[in-house]
Amino acid sequence: MDKSRVAAFTDAVVAIIMTIMVLEFKTPETYNWSGILDEGTYFFAYAISFLFILVAWYNHHYMFALAPRITKRIFWINNAWLFSMSIIPVSTAWVGKFMMNKAPEYFYLIIFLFWSLAYESLTKEIIKASKASGHKEIAKKIASMPPYRLLNSWRSLILYAVVLVMIQYFPPMGLLVTLAELLYMAFHTTDDSDQIA
Amino acid sequence: MDKSRVAAFTDAVVAIIMTIMVLEFKTPETYNWSGILDEGTYFFAYAISFLFILVAWYNHHYMFALAPRITKRIFWINNAWLFSMSIIPVSTAWVGKFMMNKAPEYFYLIIFLFWSLAYESLTKEIIKASKASGHKEIAKKIASMPPYRLLNSWRSLILYAVVLVMIQYFPPMGLLVTLAELLYMAFHTTDDSDQIA
Amino acid sequence: MDKSRVAAFTDAVVAIIMTIMVLEFKTPETYNWSGILDEGTYFFAYAISFLFILVAWYNHHYMFALAPRITKRIFWINNAWLFSMSIIPVSTAWVGKFMMNKAPEYFYLIIFLFWSLAYESLTKEIIKASKASGHKEIAKKIASMPPYRLLNSWRSLILYAVVLVMIQYFPPMGLLVTLAELLYMAFHTTDDSDQIA
Amino acid sequence: MDKSRVAAFTDAVVAIIMTIMVLEFKTPETYNWSGILDEGTYFFAYAISFLFILVAWYNHHYMFALAPRITKRIFWINNAWLFSMSIIPVSTAWVGKFMMNKAPEYFYLIIFLFWSLAYESLTKEIIKASKASGHKEIAKKIASMPPYRLLNSWRSLILYAVVLVMIQYFPPMGLLVTLAELLYMAFHTTDDSDQIA
Repeated sequence: MDKSRVAAFTDAVVAIIMTIMVLEFKTPETYNWSGILDEGTYFFAYAISFLFILVAWYNHHYMFALAPRITKRIFWINNAWLFSMSIIPVSTAWVGKFMMNKAPEYFYLIIFLFWSLAYESLTKEIIKASKASGHKEIAKKIASMPPYRLLNSWRSLILYAVVLVMIQYFPPMGLLVTLAELLYMAFHTTDDSDQIA
Repeated sequence: MDKSRVAAFTDAVVAIIMTIMVLEFKTPETYNWSGILDEGTYFFAYAISFLFILVAWYNHHYMFALAPRITKRIFWINNAWLFSMSIIPVSTAWVGKFMMNKAPEYFYLIIFLFWSLAYESLTKEIIKASKASGHKEIAKKIASMPPYRLLNSWRSLILYAVVLVMIQYFPPMGLLVTLAELLYMAFHTTDDSDQIA
Repeated sequence: MDKSRVAAFTDAVVAIIMTIMVLEFKTPETYNWSGILDEGTYFFAYAISFLFILVAWYNHHYMFALAPRITKRIFWINNAWLFSMSIIPVSTAWVGKFMMNKAPEYFYLIIFLFWSLAYESLTKEIIKASKASGHKEIAKKIASMPPYRLLNSWRSLILYAVVLVMIQYFPPMGLLVTLAELLYMAFHTTDDSDQIA
Repeated sequence: MDKSRVAAFTDAVVAIIMTIMVLEFKTPETYNWSGILDEGTYFFAYAISFLFILVAWYNHHYMFALAPRITKRIFWINNAWLFSMSIIPVSTAWVGKFMMNKAPEYFYLIIFLFWSLAYESLTKEIIKASKASGHKEIAKKIASMPPYRLLNSWRSLILYAVVLVMIQYFPPMGLLVTLAELLYMAFHTTDDSDQIA
């Protein structure tokens, strides 16, 4: 498929998902500072999800820049990845409203997990397609992306198990650990990750 | 017309239509699991419409990649196609709220039918324009797209008639048959459908 | 300026304006047909504004395809044109709610008039810039666009005056005459309007 | 990184931020002129924020057109710049509702200040990256942009201090001084600011 058109369509969807989350800020009913300070918890969840989507985009950009061709299979796994991200505004709104409660924190993690699986599948499919068309060097580069290696390892499973327990005692650990994981993924990238166009 | 600018404008509209459907998820008023589970029926309708728009986009991408030129007529039929899709968030929200009722299910099908007619007209016009400019091979390729052949045949008319009756007895059949038809259209594509840019 | 980036940014804004108008359809509170039929008047206003924006886009596409360069002045007049269009969702929502009343019909026309002035200024500035850079042929082509010639003539002033009076007796004439004018502008285009990229 | 894809993604986010502000206009509940006139104060705040985002975009366009390469650091500072702008719809809605009150006016200025800092950092990073890759001429051009020189000088700090005091006596001075500053930035640009693509 036309790689630039698929990337542009993907980018439009991602940009909209990221930006419509701002609609969840309700205009304060009062002109006192308390009006805006009440939005504090949603602001915290909003900032984390904003970071989430940008980290996802950065890695998507890298993979798509390298991918030799967008096959029908890659297109549909890319769509599943978009679908999982399209639920982020829902989970963000809920956890931003009830940050100290278990169900919203678990739900936020479930969407994160769903996104991780879609991202892993997308990466694997692009690696497979690269190998199939003889681009072994590209397959190797994509397979060495730190976020992919993290999500595709026992480390992330253990992390999930630990977080699931921690939420029982202090629910906001769901968001906090997600934030830590996102910062890790934002900083740890392959050296050439911003040198490919 | 500038094919890439028309395609980019079309993609922006399609991406927005697909993504603003998420605004229909209302933030739960409670922090219990029941809060999010209540969104279940809308989630089901949302997922089907998300698939709907992606199937439509895939076929549009294929036709536009092949089309030799965007004439004024193609532009306006493309706009009718966009207009029909712009109503999908409305029909999705209604059927997602009242999934067991006849009127919302019929309305969802009416919008689907309206979209089918716009899609058929768009395909026919591109075939005509391709022939007129001497691109017979392209006209043939476009005419052999399985979704176009399905919608342009007696099979789809019979399917519609059957669904109209089924909804009388079990309303959700409207969404379920649409889902089946979309999955058929997602899987059955011409072999070269992802090899053209 | 980078013509393609200005055009892409403009297109994104136009696409969003056109598409968010669908958010004004409120999900029916009932599962009876009356639920959706109550949206009828808004649907009528929505369809006209959808056509409005597409007619505007078509002419913008033509002018930008021909324009030799986007100057700072053209950029800012283009922004005024975007600003005028950004109010269309507001005037559409109001007139779609109170179609039989004078104030909403007049307001819709005021926004249309504001848009017309911005469009005329944009056309004049592009003509001027084309002449200034020695592209007389392009200046002539743009000056001969039927919508520009209509809006820039006594005909449109007389039309406005007549409509202002008609609304006093039958308010919906505001929307109906706008629709007639848009259809005229959609059909009457220069012969090469879809042959330039 | 792929400069055009980063620019296109940025543009999509900026276009959405600018356009969704229109959703804050509530459809009047009455068909009298008073219905629309009540939106007057929000309209004033809306127009200023619309101008804000366009001024920001113009300067961003200039810098990105010149920037030799988008590094990972530039990408993340660009994201901070986007994040600061994504709050504009919130501050605009609040100040548009309570224009005569101190807290909303101060909040609007805080977001403006946050945006200024992100914009300054982005400019500095692009200058640094240009120098590092041996493009001294580009670094010099970017450093001479009037908005950057204004925001990066004692003049803007003094202006801020004066505004903070003025709001105590007449709150709308917050918006009015911002408007004056934006108009200054819109008019004062380098001579070649619209000649680079």
